Amino acid sequence: MSLPKPIEHLIGELSKLPGVGRRSAERMTFDLVAAPPDRIKFLVEALTRVSTGVSSCPVCGYFAIDGACGIHCSEQNPGTLVIVEKALDVIAIEKAGGYRGGYHVLGGHLSPLKGIGPDDLRLAELFDRLKNPDLKELILATSPTVEGDATAMYIAAHVNREDLTVTRLGRGVPMGGSLEYADSGTLRLAIESRRALDAK
Amino acid sequence: MSLPKPIEHLIGELSKLPGVGRRSAERMTFDLVAAPPDRIKFLVEALTRVSTGVSSCPVCGYFAIDGACGIHCSEQNPGTLVIVEKALDVIAIEKAGGYRGGYHVLGGHLSPLKGIGPDDLRLAELFDRLKNPDLKELILATSPTVEGDATAMYIAAHVNREDLTVTRLGRGVPMGGSLEYADSGTLRLAIESRRALDAK
Repeated sequence: MSLPKPIEHLIGELSKLPGVGRRSAERMTFDLVAAPPDRIKFLVEALTRVSTGVSSCPVCGYFAIDGACGIHCSEQNPGTLVIVEKALDVIAIEKAGGYRGGYHVLGGHLSPLKGIGPDDLRLAELFDRLKNPDLKELILATSPTVEGDATAMYIAAHVNREDLTVTRLGRGVPMGGSLEYADSGTLRLAIESRRALDAK
Repeated sequence: MSLPKPIEHLIGELSKLPGVGRRSAERMTFDLVAAPPDRIKFLVEALTRVSTGVSSCPVCGYFAIDGACGIHCSEQNPGTLVIVEKALDVIAIEKAGGYRGGYHVLGGHLSPLKGIGPDDLRLAELFDRLKNPDLKELILATSPTVEGDATAMYIAAHVNREDLTVTRLGRGVPMGGSLEYADSGTLRLAIESRRALDAK
């Protein structure tokens, strides 16, 4: 004896979500079956809204709602462009404050092991944007990981404008962190990236 | 700056699922946004099917699909009835094999602390089924927890038929378990529930 088909089916679909195994999908399904019918209705509405209204901006790669870029990238003509892996990174940088300029979302990082090559990222779109003469600086803000570094190196190597400054996010010990808990890679980088202290 | 509204909305709905926090809901949402549109379509279909087709059988409380009980309880006239808390428990007992008879799903256990009283469980439906003279035994298979025991005691105290045998699931060390890892409550129960060994 097994579960009724519609329930099995929903468990199967839910367990395709990231971080959700068979057990969690079962729990979710039984919760939804027992919940007032409005719960499923609202979830279906939210899913439908996302599937019909949310896409990627063809220029910057950030979310576009009903075809309009969420950060209005085409209305700006920025002198600097921050290159990030994911749309969520844009929000992290905006929340941090202090940066005023454009963004370009790659949609991931290079990873030969996972079969993700340059053609799988939004690199053609990036090199297209680099033709804009107003652009003076490219800030590579890919993740501080091996793959993120490789992606940044790849981009830096393929920039074909002499007058464009290419920078990478600063590395070192994080704010509020304790030295004793910093990993040795971070500490080594922090020493390499030491700066003269100007205590005037 | 925050996430676009439709995305925020979907994160909100997903984080209402059991065991899903804000972070997991974000991960699921970004996964769904990036996935081929069919992923969301299939999930919406599965949800809609469950919300329109799956209900509780008014007799036994197990899942009913399009109004028909999943275990065809009304076609049986069982001499024994196993009382469980959740529909999933029916499947666990069926999978274990060895039992042939009816089921009654309570839909939870008594829990005064959570405000769950007798009226919140399917007890009226149970006492209604007890009027069937063919019924000879009631097997209380609520969880081996304080609440499950209290629920079993409540039912046993309210059975008003002298000729009805009321039993509770056996307690003791689980099959394949190691004594050294059994908790002391289980061990105490196992000693209390010791049985004469008939090694003919």
